[in-house]
Amino acid sequence: MSTKKPHHPGKPRSTGRPDARPPGSGASRRPPPRGGDGDRRPPAPPPDTVYLWGTHAVVEALGSLRRKVLRISATEGAAERVAELAADRGVPVTVVCAEAISARLPRDAVHQGLLLEARRIEPIALDDVPDDGVVLILDQITDPHNVGAILRTAAAFGVSALVMQDRHAPDLGGTLAKAASGGLEHVPVALVVNLARTLDKLGERGFLRVGLDSDGDGSLEAMELPRPLALVLGSEGDGLRRLTRERCDAVARLDMPGPIKSLNVSIACAVALTVARLKAPTGTTSA
Amino acid sequence: MSTKKPHHPGKPRSTGRPDARPPGSGASRRPPPRGGDGDRRPPAPPPDTVYLWGTHAVVEALGSLRRKVLRISATEGAAERVAELAADRGVPVTVVCAEAISARLPRDAVHQGLLLEARRIEPIALDDVPDDGVVLILDQITDPHNVGAILRTAAAFGVSALVMQDRHAPDLGGTLAKAASGGLEHVPVALVVNLARTLDKLGERGFLRVGLDSDGDGSLEAMELPRPLALVLGSEGDGLRRLTRERCDAVARLDMPGPIKSLNVSIACAVALTVARLKAPTGTTSA
Repeated sequence: MSTKKPHHPGKPRSTGRPDARPPGSGASRRPPPRGGDGDRRPPAPPPDTVYLWGTHAVVEALGSLRRKVLRISATEGAAERVAELAADRGVPVTVVCAEAISARLPRDAVHQGLLLEARRIEPIALDDVPDDGVVLILDQITDPHNVGAILRTAAAFGVSALVMQDRHAPDLGGTLAKAASGGLEHVPVALVVNLARTLDKLGERGFLRVGLDSDGDGSLEAMELPRPLALVLGSEGDGLRRLTRERCDAVARLDMPGPIKSLNVSIACAVALTVARLKAPTGTTSA
Repeated sequence: MSTKKPHHPGKPRSTGRPDARPPGSGASRRPPPRGGDGDRRPPAPPPDTVYLWGTHAVVEALGSLRRKVLRISATEGAAERVAELAADRGVPVTVVCAEAISARLPRDAVHQGLLLEARRIEPIALDDVPDDGVVLILDQITDPHNVGAILRTAAAFGVSALVMQDRHAPDLGGTLAKAASGGLEHVPVALVVNLARTLDKLGERGFLRVGLDSDGDGSLEAMELPRPLALVLGSEGDGLRRLTRERCDAVARLDMPGPIKSLNVSIACAVALTVARLKAPTGTTSA
């Protein structure tokens, strides 16, 4: 959960990986490439382009006006599944064999016969985060699978935006989009330079800022949770940083009655969103 | 989510994988072994033994009286982390290099320098499922990562048992234990032959049986949720089988206000347990 990588949105990267991950990051968990050939890497997508794969991620991207889609490569069966959506959107579909898709993606990518080339989704500015509903703020959660899972859940709860610190955020590329199962197309993401200052600004705009931490002052379910609400989540190992905590109006625990107290961060997020939803002021329609 | 594998608890398996997965299952998602050597497989653990790996899984197994632990292989640094716990339990620790551990585990297993040999955890009988609290029932959820994540969450919520159909359950081996991050040691698992009959019996014992399905009759949060409560979850793709649905007292939806309606099954489980907890009758102490 704590691999840290520099991140420069908007500035295309020149690494050889389709997910544009800087070389060497996460290397200890990454097995050597197939066949023991240390140089075998799929060719990079063109600058400012990302590859999306898997049915959910591709279908949701096709349905999203926030995403500029370029073209699709699909196996024969998969091409049929997306033919109508692609035609509606005027996106060309090329039928290829499954191996041709695998060769362009990270090893073990479960692509289900679908590869979509698209423009990188543009982060929104903090000022464009709506002043109602619930905003999620992630403090140093850098694993694209965890952030992807959080985006999927956030999309289901109608969360209005996800805010991350630019240099502690995963790349908004294919791995995250796959884990988000379409969520990346629906939840606007704001990337900020300084999380503490961001919390100050949200406070000035009327957000109640609630951090979640195992040594919080009280239980989340015992709190009033009016809108707009900013829920701040830290990484599973490290929790919230001191400067982040200090900018919260309250730091709350998720009181777990069972023998294991720690939750996976994407599960903790779902629990917190459920509590916030059940305790929403009357008339609240989304998260 | 839907790889189906035969499962025979108590009957030791003779496959060559430490996780005792039948050869060929999940093969389409499994990359070829390192170096292109199709026969490279780690040696099987002895019959009726499982390998557990990773800090959480190993530490929780050492702390669990339900688990018979045999011995530990650990890197020098990892051995220090578990020395006290292992000594308390009288478990021998052998210091080895990280590669020696990797060689005994499925490829890409993140073992954090720890490999524990233990007896397979014994499922409990349905009659031993306690008649209070919340029981989770899984209908054809067979992916060990999903079931593991559910067990971890169940342990945090103090769920009293997890019930699965024997032949539609993942192996209770190392992959599931790792995903459960200790949850397998704390939540008793009952494996049953027939899920419909099991629901009948739980009904006779006073359980309110609530199935979760996207086309349920009403919202879970609008329901009375007394104890004992059986929450029945289906697989992400297929939902609940007809015979399972028919045995439920009610089938409920998780009403999601956002643009994506489907949740990952382990997230849906966390949402349902949170709703059940917030709506628990006064005086309920666990899930």
